[in-house]
Amino acid sequence: MKTYKIALLPGDGIGRDVTEAAKAVLEKAAARNGFSLVTTSYPWSCDYYLENGSMMPSDGIETLRSFDAILLGAVGWPRKVPDSVSLHGLLLPIRKAFVQYANIRPHRLLPGVQGPLRSENFDILCIRENTEGEYSGAGGRVHQGTDSEVAVETSIFTRKGVERILRFGFEQARARGGKLASVTKSNAQRYSMVFWDETTERLSAEYPDVEVTSYHIDAMAARMVMAPESLDVVVASNLFGDILTDLGAAIQGGLGFAASANINPDRSAPSMFEPVHGSAPDIAHLGIANPIAAIWSGAMMLEHLGETGAAGKVMAAIEATTARGIGASPGRDKTDAITASVLSALD
Amino acid sequence: MKTYKIALLPGDGIGRDVTEAAKAVLEKAAARNGFSLVTTSYPWSCDYYLENGSMMPSDGIETLRSFDAILLGAVGWPRKVPDSVSLHGLLLPIRKAFVQYANIRPHRLLPGVQGPLRSENFDILCIRENTEGEYSGAGGRVHQGTDSEVAVETSIFTRKGVERILRFGFEQARARGGKLASVTKSNAQRYSMVFWDETTERLSAEYPDVEVTSYHIDAMAARMVMAPESLDVVVASNLFGDILTDLGAAIQGGLGFAASANINPDRSAPSMFEPVHGSAPDIAHLGIANPIAAIWSGAMMLEHLGETGAAGKVMAAIEATTARGIGASPGRDKTDAITASVLSALD
Ligand SMILES: CC(C)[C@H](C(=O)O)[C@@H](O)C(=O)O
Ligand SMILES: CC(C)[C@H](C(=O)O)[C@@H](O)C(=O)O
Repeated sequence: MKTYKIALLPGDGIGRDVTEAAKAVLEKAAARNGFSLVTTSYPWSCDYYLENGSMMPSDGIETLRSFDAILLGAVGWPRKVPDSVSLHGLLLPIRKAFVQYANIRPHRLLPGVQGPLRSENFDILCIRENTEGEYSGAGGRVHQGTDSEVAVETSIFTRKGVERILRFGFEQARARGGKLASVTKSNAQRYSMVFWDETTERLSAEYPDVEVTSYHIDAMAARMVMAPESLDVVVASNLFGDILTDLGAAIQGGLGFAASANINPDRSAPSMFEPVHGSAPDIAHLGIANPIAAIWSGAMMLEHLGETGAAGKVMAAIEATTARGIGASPGRDKTDAITASVLSALD
Repeated sequence: MKTYKIALLPGDGIGRDVTEAAKAVLEKAAARNGFSLVTTSYPWSCDYYLENGSMMPSDGIETLRSFDAILLGAVGWPRKVPDSVSLHGLLLPIRKAFVQYANIRPHRLLPGVQGPLRSENFDILCIRENTEGEYSGAGGRVHQGTDSEVAVETSIFTRKGVERILRFGFEQARARGGKLASVTKSNAQRYSMVFWDETTERLSAEYPDVEVTSYHIDAMAARMVMAPESLDVVVASNLFGDILTDLGAAIQGGLGFAASANINPDRSAPSMFEPVHGSAPDIAHLGIANPIAAIWSGAMMLEHLGETGAAGKVMAAIEATTARGIGASPGRDKTDAITASVLSALD
């Protein structure tokens, strides 16, 4: 029997609640589809930081490297550890170290879910650059604490980084119908974003079957709300993709439904799957977090592992659940009840 | 009779159509309310660039300095001149030279206008930093055109710049009901955005009557769509404010309704008023651009000049127009018909 080694990083807050749910669903899907998952759980989190002084052990990255995939809950608990420490100590280093340069986030309404828009027919695949750009972490502060203080934050875009995410976007667009939207702000950011636009233009010659359009981030944000049905695959930088995918989560009914995959397309290191939502400390461990985003992320993991059949069955089980209204309204159903419904739909 | 000197910069594309409409409305409002506007129009634009090699004459800023206010249409016509040239040659230098550090944009539904959200009861005032931050223009490219190319773009935040926009935000919140949302991304941008958050925290001690909450930009974008009624005054950096105000325009029914003011709060130089929309070359001079955003921006100009009564009457005339369905549906009514309706509502 085929066996996959999965590292489970529940992380903080509701991350623990939803990864437990996802694990149960994925294990059942494996059993029913002739493969098995061996999961190893690591307690790396803000609590771990308070005890050990770091978000993960110094060999954390090396430990994770031997797995086939990573399933992560959520990282961060600002009242315990500043986000700027916790995220840079766990989530962001994994994305970078494992060259998970493509962060993929699907945005569509699950059956039975009512979104905030009047428009209901959209199916957007956002692809976010995940390793550099505006979140490079380069910068500093001078004259700190004085009237002359200046803080600088430098976005760094490399040819390799921009080319590979754009190629990934072109490939996804090719596979899905041929429409790609590239998002920049080249009218105001004349170095980074003009570079991105030029690269898009240059690569487009290699993908004559893909229709690519460039949008400014402000116009794209408006478009996602005004005309989401006009979009197909959207590719954007780290920050712009971050913003657009929360917006995508919003139009699909909320963060409880937004799944994501941090993909290393070369498969030179494990990819990581995580719901878009955060750790939501205020509702942690109350048993009311919606596990659907985490389960959907798990389905993306199965897909990535090549278990396409099982992935499809998990998606169908999610859809059967929300179609019955279970887990479809934010805050109404308990984590356990939603999980039980998905599990039974797998029968 | 009180006289105000207004510089008119129609700019490009529909900028010309809508400033003509706004000028007619403002002149009538002046005549009916006992003051007069003397407008001088300057043809600075992409066409001007093609003839003269620059977006405005070298003494353009000095020419504008003597006016009481500036009314601008829109700048940019990418097929003639790259946006990265046109905007940095006209719009952005004015904002910077005249220290128009507060860009104010109101977002609410006009009567008769149907927005894309199911939610209809919101009234948000976005305040965008307008002179530095992510649009500082600092950066460069090395190894250009080679595999090793790197593009960097540096956001620069000064203590003075951050303090003054936050104070402006606190003041506006105090005047409007006491709720301020400050938008950053301090979990991923640890220099600039942590600095902004610290400054917010420090200043909040001076405004104990204002309830201030910090949001991440991604969460705020989602909130504007999921729960816009929960927001009041929102203050954000140049880029984040840019994105949020296009999103604000979207939820208020589209860019045809989104007004803005680039304010120099110290009144050491003229302020500038402009619709949020761009030049829309595809519909330029067809007589179908919606002038409401430009007229609303004109009302903000009257307000700034101290003509509060006239400003209120222009707003009432706009509302009477959209309430009758005129100009309320994107693309349906002609520019002239909408303008005529606003004019007659001023009687
Ligand atoms: C928590 C934060 C650093 C993270 C990000 O911005 O990447 C999150 O918002 C996300 O979208 O995955
Ligand atoms: C045209 C562009 C430079 C401008 C900006 O980003 O400031 C516009 O988008 C706006 O919002 O006023």
